[in-house]
Amino acid sequence: MPQPRQMHLGVFVLGTGNHIAGWRWPGAAQSFEDLSVVQEIARIAERGKFDLIFLGDNLSTDPGMHPSFAARFEPITMLAALAATTTHVGLGATASTTYNEPYTVARQFASLDHLSGGRAAWNAVTSSGEKAALNYGREHPRHDARYEIAEEFVDVVRGLWDCWDDGAVVRDHATGRYIDPAKVKPLDHEGRFFRVKGPLPTSRCPQGQPIVLQAGSSEPGLNLAARTADVVFTVVQDLGEAQAGYQALKSRMARFGRHPDEIAVLPGVMPVLGSTTAEAREKLNRLQGFVNPGNALVMLSSRLGQDVSHYPLDALVPEDLPLPDTSHGFAGAMLAKAWRERMTWRDLFNLAGAARGHWVVAGTPEEVADTLQQWFESRACDGFNILPAWFPGAFEEFVDQVVPLLQRRGLYRRDYRGNMLRDHLGLPRPRSRLF
Amino acid sequence: MPQPRQMHLGVFVLGTGNHIAGWRWPGAAQSFEDLSVVQEIARIAERGKFDLIFLGDNLSTDPGMHPSFAARFEPITMLAALAATTTHVGLGATASTTYNEPYTVARQFASLDHLSGGRAAWNAVTSSGEKAALNYGREHPRHDARYEIAEEFVDVVRGLWDCWDDGAVVRDHATGRYIDPAKVKPLDHEGRFFRVKGPLPTSRCPQGQPIVLQAGSSEPGLNLAARTADVVFTVVQDLGEAQAGYQALKSRMARFGRHPDEIAVLPGVMPVLGSTTAEAREKLNRLQGFVNPGNALVMLSSRLGQDVSHYPLDALVPEDLPLPDTSHGFAGAMLAKAWRERMTWRDLFNLAGAARGHWVVAGTPEEVADTLQQWFESRACDGFNILPAWFPGAFEEFVDQVVPLLQRRGLYRRDYRGNMLRDHLGLPRPRSRLF
Repeated sequence: MPQPRQMHLGVFVLGTGNHIAGWRWPGAAQSFEDLSVVQEIARIAERGKFDLIFLGDNLSTDPGMHPSFAARFEPITMLAALAATTTHVGLGATASTTYNEPYTVARQFASLDHLSGGRAAWNAVTSSGEKAALNYGREHPRHDARYEIAEEFVDVVRGLWDCWDDGAVVRDHATGRYIDPAKVKPLDHEGRFFRVKGPLPTSRCPQGQPIVLQAGSSEPGLNLAARTADVVFTVVQDLGEAQAGYQALKSRMARFGRHPDEIAVLPGVMPVLGSTTAEAREKLNRLQGFVNPGNALVMLSSRLGQDVSHYPLDALVPEDLPLPDTSHGFAGAMLAKAWRERMTWRDLFNLAGAARGHWVVAGTPEEVADTLQQWFESRACDGFNILPAWFPGAFEEFVDQVVPLLQRRGLYRRDYRGNMLRDHLGLPRPRSRLF
Repeated sequence: MPQPRQMHLGVFVLGTGNHIAGWRWPGAAQSFEDLSVVQEIARIAERGKFDLIFLGDNLSTDPGMHPSFAARFEPITMLAALAATTTHVGLGATASTTYNEPYTVARQFASLDHLSGGRAAWNAVTSSGEKAALNYGREHPRHDARYEIAEEFVDVVRGLWDCWDDGAVVRDHATGRYIDPAKVKPLDHEGRFFRVKGPLPTSRCPQGQPIVLQAGSSEPGLNLAARTADVVFTVVQDLGEAQAGYQALKSRMARFGRHPDEIAVLPGVMPVLGSTTAEAREKLNRLQGFVNPGNALVMLSSRLGQDVSHYPLDALVPEDLPLPDTSHGFAGAMLAKAWRERMTWRDLFNLAGAARGHWVVAGTPEEVADTLQQWFESRACDGFNILPAWFPGAFEEFVDQVVPLLQRRGLYRRDYRGNMLRDHLGLPRPRSRLF
């Protein structure tokens, strides 16, 4: 009997919770600068047999931002620390293709893959926030230019990961030969944006190549993902839109010679659980009541990629607001919902404060499992990136109350079948294209 | 009674040992891509109450290099992984000021300081190897230019570390205020090489600022160190030269308003121990017998920063060989010894193969302790960076046989007196200069 299609689950890690005021929940973790907090999150993720834990990133900050964006661990160092205290869960971190060098990024994720025994994942982002440019002394490239750079950047990183063939490290005690030089090649990349000779000082990764994550939903973002991504995070608010986005990505993979199953699409979702529907809604209301609207329009300006601070908080979001160049995913999904539901700026701020523009599902464990199952089976996604409102409680509730239902329904693994992230995703280990 | 002056000890971590053929020693670790190997090294370092473990770095590779240079962990990720499984030992890694962005370096080391509870150390190097340029698509700046860049780079990194004052994270549950914005400032740096606005998305480090390591011994290198370093690694082969170098660094600190005790000078030394002097020498000979001279002149060219591959292996090292622009420390110490002792290229290769140009001391534990004591007491150094020939055995021998002698003589701590690297070094926690 063939194995039924299985969900993939990730968790979006922010120490103070994904909800902007999650840290105010009784018993919630208070900091994203405390290793014991993220170690606890990782333990819960492995208890729930999650595919991966994931960290976003920003290259600028402001004290008025989400607390875990304002004061946080740098993602690569944090995941490396977790490599030593976890055994199965994938470790995914964001690194920008606009503000890094491909040699450095390739090296750090290759190292993370070795440190973790094959669990590294790189979220290749183009950095939508133009304030990053001020920390790197340069101009912020426009959206299309960022994606042209990203296409080449990803190719260089993957090329560097291919410079060592399997079996290059021979450690021959008889002859004293440590490396077989025939199994190490330079990349000799000379492109429009990068010249990179290679090889890396790192032998072939346990996974062959670390997993590549992406989250772009614009036209160039979809092309980059269809060509190069293994996992795609999406921002959704509506089933029909999610199905259309899923189809738009999967259908274009053939152009690049790829099968639709080679990408797992994981929308972000914040589950809020209660023993009754009313209790779950009450919990969400209580969380929303913790939100301090003092900097609402500043925060919304950041999420939408344009200055909206001159609007009255209780005015309707105008239907002629332009979609910004900088960040299509969040702005597009949030504004579509605002227009569909005739939201005020205050409503939109509450939506953004809850899950930063991601989808919120409040209900009993059965109701939440039903909704996730419906989305999964109607091909709106291949699983979910879970955004617990606070840690560890809200994540434990999901793992202890919803995951067992998904398992009982045959939708989700009861245990890991391998030790590498590639195993969890059902992706084969690639051969080097240089040998 | 005042505490007598105390030695500081670091260990230079390379998974296959510091000796180029250390991996061929019976029982030696075989890889620098195995987390359990470096975890074991870190455990031994903490047993020996070491100040810090340290990783060098290169931004290019060649299969003919030292095995732990050819296939290795990237230093920052490796130290972050160790942060989770160690409690006291300092964690020092190299990051180049020529091929990185100050915002990224400041962030990763600040994150490492948080992850480790105050044990991060950044070795600021200018990258002597010009092959790095080929992996970063740019020209390799000349020696003096690299140091001009480095001066500004270090200032920017330290400035970014100062952008958050202590107490900025208030987490006020009553008001919902998480951060006090009055305690977070931008840096607004506009310099000759860098424009960096700041702040970092990281609150003030446990150590206030991570420790800064350096290893420059040229005139601009000494100035940079005298102005900004907390620990300086040196390459020595001769007591008189070491004393002169020590004095040259310490005496210029006053120019920058600093006290000589604010820098710990740690020469690299490879101890080779035996129960008799003869047994130690025999051990060193056995190690040297493992060296494969096939690529001797290629390796020497890399250490000396110039192509010497056209010389016959058994010719004398010519006295008119120019000192290269690229790397003063190693080349200077090695060539001075070669000329002093009328070495052939083969002799020089054997020296470089043993400890990459660092000092080798073979003898009984008492003899080695005597020598270290003599150097320490005659102000050639403030301690040592130990380079075990292989791991874990040669490092365990030093910790179990030499460290107790140093402790008994009152030269070295019997236990840690604090949890942070700054505590081990006896350095106060700095206040932010922006508040």
